[in-house]
Amino acid sequence: MATDKPGRTTGPFSGLLIVDLSHVLCGPFCTRLFADLGARVVKVERPKSGDDARAFGPFLNGRSVYFSFINRGKESIALDLRDDDDRKVLFAMIRRADVLVENFRPGTMERLGLGYPKLAEMNPRLIYGSISGFGQTGPLSKERAYDTVIQGISGIMSVTGYPGGPPTRVGTSVADLTSGLYGFAAIASALYARESTGKGTKIDVAMLDSMMTFVEHGVMEYSATGEIPGRLGNRHPLITPFDTFRTGDEPIVVCAGDDELFARLCGAIGRPELADERRFASNAERTANHAALKQALEAALTTKPSQHWLDTIARAGVPCGPINTVDKAVEHPQTNARNMMIVSDGIRMTGNPVKIDGYDDPAERPAAPGLDADGIRIRREFGGR
Amino acid sequence: MATDKPGRTTGPFSGLLIVDLSHVLCGPFCTRLFADLGARVVKVERPKSGDDARAFGPFLNGRSVYFSFINRGKESIALDLRDDDDRKVLFAMIRRADVLVENFRPGTMERLGLGYPKLAEMNPRLIYGSISGFGQTGPLSKERAYDTVIQGISGIMSVTGYPGGPPTRVGTSVADLTSGLYGFAAIASALYARESTGKGTKIDVAMLDSMMTFVEHGVMEYSATGEIPGRLGNRHPLITPFDTFRTGDEPIVVCAGDDELFARLCGAIGRPELADERRFASNAERTANHAALKQALEAALTTKPSQHWLDTIARAGVPCGPINTVDKAVEHPQTNARNMMIVSDGIRMTGNPVKIDGYDDPAERPAAPGLDADGIRIRREFGGR
Repeated sequence: MATDKPGRTTGPFSGLLIVDLSHVLCGPFCTRLFADLGARVVKVERPKSGDDARAFGPFLNGRSVYFSFINRGKESIALDLRDDDDRKVLFAMIRRADVLVENFRPGTMERLGLGYPKLAEMNPRLIYGSISGFGQTGPLSKERAYDTVIQGISGIMSVTGYPGGPPTRVGTSVADLTSGLYGFAAIASALYARESTGKGTKIDVAMLDSMMTFVEHGVMEYSATGEIPGRLGNRHPLITPFDTFRTGDEPIVVCAGDDELFARLCGAIGRPELADERRFASNAERTANHAALKQALEAALTTKPSQHWLDTIARAGVPCGPINTVDKAVEHPQTNARNMMIVSDGIRMTGNPVKIDGYDDPAERPAAPGLDADGIRIRREFGGR
Repeated sequence: MATDKPGRTTGPFSGLLIVDLSHVLCGPFCTRLFADLGARVVKVERPKSGDDARAFGPFLNGRSVYFSFINRGKESIALDLRDDDDRKVLFAMIRRADVLVENFRPGTMERLGLGYPKLAEMNPRLIYGSISGFGQTGPLSKERAYDTVIQGISGIMSVTGYPGGPPTRVGTSVADLTSGLYGFAAIASALYARESTGKGTKIDVAMLDSMMTFVEHGVMEYSATGEIPGRLGNRHPLITPFDTFRTGDEPIVVCAGDDELFARLCGAIGRPELADERRFASNAERTANHAALKQALEAALTTKPSQHWLDTIARAGVPCGPINTVDKAVEHPQTNARNMMIVSDGIRMTGNPVKIDGYDDPAERPAAPGLDADGIRIRREFGGR
């Protein structure tokens, strides 16, 4: 690995080689986590245009900020997967690789002659990670899927939003990101197991499966009662008060999950008698009477501005907080104290949340590669032309 | 490990012992993933009441379905962490454990005399995984946080919902679940690294850090332009059409991310001329003119019911889908073809999305334990009274 990209941080995966055939979001997000944690990730891109995400806005100085966020710290080589000479380079890499990641539609890798059995023969230690919309099996397996399609099918949109209002998309590509993170977790698990078995394996992570595990409360309710869970606005389905509340200006979040926190909250807002009311005496009663409780709390909270209440309620030891816009979240002292905003190629971007003692967590990380930026060097290294 | 719980499935973590001091959601979700993948997880609970989640609804036959979902396949022992005899049992377990997981407020473990340096001295191979609201460092470190507080601070609520409408909570505990999954990924990474270093380490995962990595598009936009991203309803910020659309009855999701898919969509709905309009000629132009495009598409789509369009649009190869309620997601043939609904102790619950070739992925999994259900056996095994 002597010739790989300079400036890589060390991490638990230092020394690993990952061949990354994936594009756009779920696969590249998975491999970015590996790059952040020390692995060498060689991104294999289609000649001329490369990863579709290179054309996604927003742009800064002519570069796709989207692509830069998701592909920092990787190397790039352009290979035509149907060209014999290019395939020789790919196969040479695969023979030495620890992990291959792909997120094509199921069936595509097989059509390209890159199915798992063939690659496993070439390299029995290879961990072959597939991330797809619906997975490699089941009646919908071969269907195309994008994030919002999966959000719709999984039920998460049906439980997001306000009662009486429309179903609501989670305002980020949560199905892509969740499946990318599960893909990372699955590959790390298989790498650990390979240390004892000596053998690689095949991983099959689906966006729909991943998203289903995030609909927990909705599935719990349906499983327990047979009833179809609806939209609750910002209220927690099981715990009260655990919601957003109006104040004199901006709304705030208050979570007073147990009787003690609830009593402290009532004291802090000058309404201690609320904690003594029978209809608010337990979490079950507060949840049953959530509308009346919200009205009573807001009657007090709307008398003063949000900052007053955030200070007062936090001082009473009750979890609360503002509803930040993205700029406030990004500039928050807590975010920056933990290197959660870093710089890469002059672009400020989200950092690495996997903090492991003994490894670097730098505030500056290597750039995303230009298309085929490492092509010549990689071809030389792996014995191609 | 001969005496551990029967019926455990085999997986990449078979043979591992995890001491789980965590409660409610993010920590227990992390360790459930390990239990699903073969690890032995011993849940240490407070005597008498146990994990708070045991009191959370919904209930089925007197058991908390919430607790059952998140704690299946674990063992339980009740230990008073301040009692000397109980601490002996705990320390005996920790000496033999591979992993410890805790999600107390930062500072609590140290106050209990269970800080990392002390436990590392006891067992230098121990991986000590902490998951907390704000992390072990930074100005907010010691503050209490629950899911909605983190959703508010991270900015994700500010980008979820409709233009002109209020900020909207993601209708599931996404900050807990995401940090639990990052915690799992971090521990699996550290276990892999331990195979070469021989040493344990400390992991510090925060709900806020985890959530920030899921606000990707919002952070991209702010980073590139300095502008504060707002709420877009169900529309994708960068790709058009990629949204929900009204039909003759229920709304549907359609994602036609590139020019070819867009042309196919226009053909499928009988409006091929839309693909030729200059204002819809590229993704950038479609995104700039998203409102006009939505109006044009809905003018066609509202003439027939959703099922007609889902069939027609899918046949044209364009990604689309229904907006399912939770019951439809749970009963979906794709969900069940992949064992994503399983049975544990008679309760139907979400399955394991980490599908790794060569390991079981059973449709029935061991139950969650009663409080202290394994206490006598574990005390005997680890040499306590």
